[in-house]
Amino acid sequence: MIKIISLHPLRGKTIRLSPPQILALGFLVFIIVGTLLLKLPFATTVSVSWLDALFTATSAITVTGLVVVDTGSAYSLFGEIVIMSLMQLGGLGLMTFSVLLLMMLRRKVGLHQRILTQESLNLNEASIGGLLRLVKLLFVFSIAIEAIAFVLLSIRWIPEYGWSEGIHQSVFHSISAFNNAGFSLWSDSLSGYVGDPLVNIVITGLFITGGLGFTVLVDIWDKKSFRKLSLHSKLMLVGTFIINITALLTLFILEFSNPETIGSFSFTDKLWGSYFQAVTPRTAGFNSLPIAEMTVPSILLLMLLMFIGAGSGSTGSGIKVTTFIVMLLATVSFLRGKSETTVFNRMIKVHTIVRALSIMIISILAIFIAVFILSITEAAPIMEIIFEVISAFGTVGLSMGLTTDLTSFGKCIIMVMMFIGRLGPLTLAFVFARQKQSSIRHPEEEVFTG
Amino acid sequence: MIKIISLHPLRGKTIRLSPPQILALGFLVFIIVGTLLLKLPFATTVSVSWLDALFTATSAITVTGLVVVDTGSAYSLFGEIVIMSLMQLGGLGLMTFSVLLLMMLRRKVGLHQRILTQESLNLNEASIGGLLRLVKLLFVFSIAIEAIAFVLLSIRWIPEYGWSEGIHQSVFHSISAFNNAGFSLWSDSLSGYVGDPLVNIVITGLFITGGLGFTVLVDIWDKKSFRKLSLHSKLMLVGTFIINITALLTLFILEFSNPETIGSFSFTDKLWGSYFQAVTPRTAGFNSLPIAEMTVPSILLLMLLMFIGAGSGSTGSGIKVTTFIVMLLATVSFLRGKSETTVFNRMIKVHTIVRALSIMIISILAIFIAVFILSITEAAPIMEIIFEVISAFGTVGLSMGLTTDLTSFGKCIIMVMMFIGRLGPLTLAFVFARQKQSSIRHPEEEVFTG
Ligand SMILES: [K+]
Ligand SMILES: [K+]
Repeated sequence: MIKIISLHPLRGKTIRLSPPQILALGFLVFIIVGTLLLKLPFATTVSVSWLDALFTATSAITVTGLVVVDTGSAYSLFGEIVIMSLMQLGGLGLMTFSVLLLMMLRRKVGLHQRILTQESLNLNEASIGGLLRLVKLLFVFSIAIEAIAFVLLSIRWIPEYGWSEGIHQSVFHSISAFNNAGFSLWSDSLSGYVGDPLVNIVITGLFITGGLGFTVLVDIWDKKSFRKLSLHSKLMLVGTFIINITALLTLFILEFSNPETIGSFSFTDKLWGSYFQAVTPRTAGFNSLPIAEMTVPSILLLMLLMFIGAGSGSTGSGIKVTTFIVMLLATVSFLRGKSETTVFNRMIKVHTIVRALSIMIISILAIFIAVFILSITEAAPIMEIIFEVISAFGTVGLSMGLTTDLTSFGKCIIMVMMFIGRLGPLTLAFVFARQKQSSIRHPEEEVFTG
Repeated sequence: MIKIISLHPLRGKTIRLSPPQILALGFLVFIIVGTLLLKLPFATTVSVSWLDALFTATSAITVTGLVVVDTGSAYSLFGEIVIMSLMQLGGLGLMTFSVLLLMMLRRKVGLHQRILTQESLNLNEASIGGLLRLVKLLFVFSIAIEAIAFVLLSIRWIPEYGWSEGIHQSVFHSISAFNNAGFSLWSDSLSGYVGDPLVNIVITGLFITGGLGFTVLVDIWDKKSFRKLSLHSKLMLVGTFIINITALLTLFILEFSNPETIGSFSFTDKLWGSYFQAVTPRTAGFNSLPIAEMTVPSILLLMLLMFIGAGSGSTGSGIKVTTFIVMLLATVSFLRGKSETTVFNRMIKVHTIVRALSIMIISILAIFIAVFILSITEAAPIMEIIFEVISAFGTVGLSMGLTTDLTSFGKCIIMVMMFIGRLGPLTLAFVFARQKQSSIRHPEEEVFTG
C-alpha cells in the first residue's frame, strides 16, 4: 500500500505526496539539473542544443544510453563527469542516495525516508528493519565492484591508451557498465573489443551483477548456499541463467554465417560476440556487433530480451525477469488445472500474479502508443521504430540507428519512454492513480474469455 | 474442469479423450475431408496443388479467409459449395453440429455430447439445462439471419449480375459474412462496394452479430433490456461499441488524405470506407480498402484490432473482447489499490483474471514464435509477416499481400496459426496439458515484480 508523505516547502502550506510521486519528481529535478550542467560552456566541445542536452541528461539518469550526440567527442571531461554522476545516481537509485545522505549527516532516518527507499528498490513488502543495513551494503558493494572492475579494465586500457586516457576510459566504462547505463566514449561502443576475453568478462560481469538487483546480491552474500536463498533470488538466478544461455545459442546459430556480424570471425570470437550480444539487451545496452546489420530473427530476439529486462530493484529496467517468470508459471499452472501457482515448493500469491499482469498490460500499452505516435511522426522503417521504443522503455540503449535521425517530437517521445521505463510502469501509474479502498462487496459473476 | 470421454472405436479398445482433444481431432478430420473434396477434378477450374487445397480447407473451416488461390476464379460451383459448407461448419461450431445431428436423429442427447458442445461454445460454467434450447435457438437464429441477409443482398446483386449470378453471390457472401469467414468471390473482396450503404450495412451487420457470440444473442432475445443482461453480454455490447467507434474515428483521421485509400473519396464514402475497415479486423476479414496502401499507424491499429478479435463462443476468434476488457479492468483495479475487480456492480473472479492472463501469454508467445520462424524462412518485410501472423491467429483473413508469396513452409506455419486461433489458444493448450490436482499445500512467498 502507498503511504502519503507530507512536505512543508513553505512552512504552513502542506503538499501531500506519495513515494511514487516524490520519486518521479526527484528524477525530474535531476534531469533539469543535469541539462543545465551539460549546457555550461565548458561541458561541451561542440555546440549541443538544449533538446540534445535534455536528451543526454534523461538518457544518463535513466541509465538508458541512447545518444543523439557522440558522448566521447561532444562532451568535455566535465561533461563526462556530469554524465557519470547522473548514471551513478540513476543506477543506484535516487532514494537510496537520499537515505545515504541522511546517514552521512548522522541524522536518524525517519520512517518516511525508509518507505521511500523501499519504493525505489521495489521492496514493497520486505521488512523495514533490514533496510538500513541493505543500503549500507549496497553502497559498499557498488563501490567495491566498480573499483575491482576499474583495476581489471586498467590492465587492458592503460597499456593501450597511456595512463591518463586509460584511467579515464576504465573509470567511465566501469560506472557505465555496473549501472547498466550503456554509455560509451567510443562511437562504436565496445565493437573494438568484440573478441577480447578480459573486456568481455569484466563488462558483462558488471552489468549482469548490477542487473540481478541488490536484494539478490545481499541474499547471496548472507546465505552462500542456493538452497537457502529466498524464492525471489532463486528465480532471478535460474531465470537469468536460462535466458542468457538460450539467447547465446540462438544468436550464435542465427548470426553464424552473417558476414556483417560474426560471419568472418574465428570460432572463439563468434562465441564471444554472441555471448556479449546475448547478455547486453537486458538492459546494459553496450554493443560489440552492429545491431542494424543483424538478421531479422536476431533483432526480434533482442526486442524480446529488452522487453524482459533485468531484476527488480536493480540497475536495469524492463518488465523484469521475475514478472516474466511469474506470468509463465501462472499460465502453466492454469493449464494444468492447479488452483495455486507453485515453484521451488513455494506458492506465489494471487496478488503477485495480478501485479505481473498489470505491469505487462501497462508496458505493452505504453510501447504500442509510442510506436503508434512515432509511426506518424517519423519517416523510418517500422522495425527501427519498434526497436527504439522498446530499447528506451527497457532503458537498454541499443539502437538500429534511429536515435540521431529522430525529429524533435520523436526525441520527446523517446525521453518519455525512458522516464516511464526507469521509473517502472507501475510506479508511474501510481503517480497518477488515486488509491481507493471500497468497502462495498459486489456479487461475483462469470465472464467468458478466450 | 475437463471431463474425460471414452470412445470405443474398435469395440473393446478404449481411447480416452478430453473434449478439447475431440474438438481438435474434429477440426483435423474436417480439414482432411475438405482437402480431398477440393482436390476432386470437378472442384477446380485450374490446377490447385495439394498444399493449396489444404490451405483453402484450413482457411475455410477456421473461418479465416486468407487465400493462396483466387476463390472466385479457381474453384467451380462445387468447390465453392465445399468452401461454404466448411465455413458454416467452422463458424457455427463443429460440436454444435454434432449435437444438432443427434437431435435430428431423434436420439436422446447424452451428457457427453452436451459437455462437448459447451466446450466448443466456451460455456464452461453455464448450466447444462439451457444448452439444448441454446443449440436450437442458435440453429434457427443463424439460418434466419443468413436468409434475411440473402434477401437484402439480392436486392442489390440480382439487378446488377442477373438472377443466377446474383443469387450465387448473395448466398456465398451471406454465409461468409455471418460466419466471419471473410471469403469473397471477388479478387478485390468488397472494394467495389466501398460506398454502397446497403452492402456495407448488411455485411457488417452480419459479421458483427456473428461476432458477438450466441450466448449474447440469446441473452438479448430473452431479456430485451440492457439492465437485465448478464455481465458478459453487457461487457460484449459496450466493449464492441467503444472499440468500433474508436477505430472508426482513428482510421478516418489517419486515412483522410491518403490518396491510395479514402483520400479521393467524397465525405460520405470516406466515412463508409473508414467504418467498414474499422469493424472488419475483428475478425471478419473482408476489405473494401487496399490494406497494403494504408498508412503505417492505421496498419498498427488493424493489428491491435485483429489481436483483440470478437466474442467468446462466436464465429470470430482472437483473444476475445472480454479477455481484453477483463485485463484492462484488473489493471485499473490493481492501480487503484482495490482487492477486487468490479464492473457494472459485479465482481470478476480471480480465476477469470488468471485465465485472461494465460490466454494473453499463450497468444503472444504463439505469435512471437510464428513471426520469428517466418522472419527466417520468408524474404518479406517484417511488417507484412507480423500482419499475416496476427491475421491468421485471429482468423481474420486480412493480408498486406504476403499470403500468395509464402513459401510452402510459410504456408504450413500460417495454417498452424489459423488452427490455433480458431481452436482457441487455451483449448489447444488443454489438448496437450495433463490436468493434475495437487493436494499438497505450499507456503506463500513474495516475489518482487516490475
Ligand atoms: K542501458
Ligand atoms: K475471417
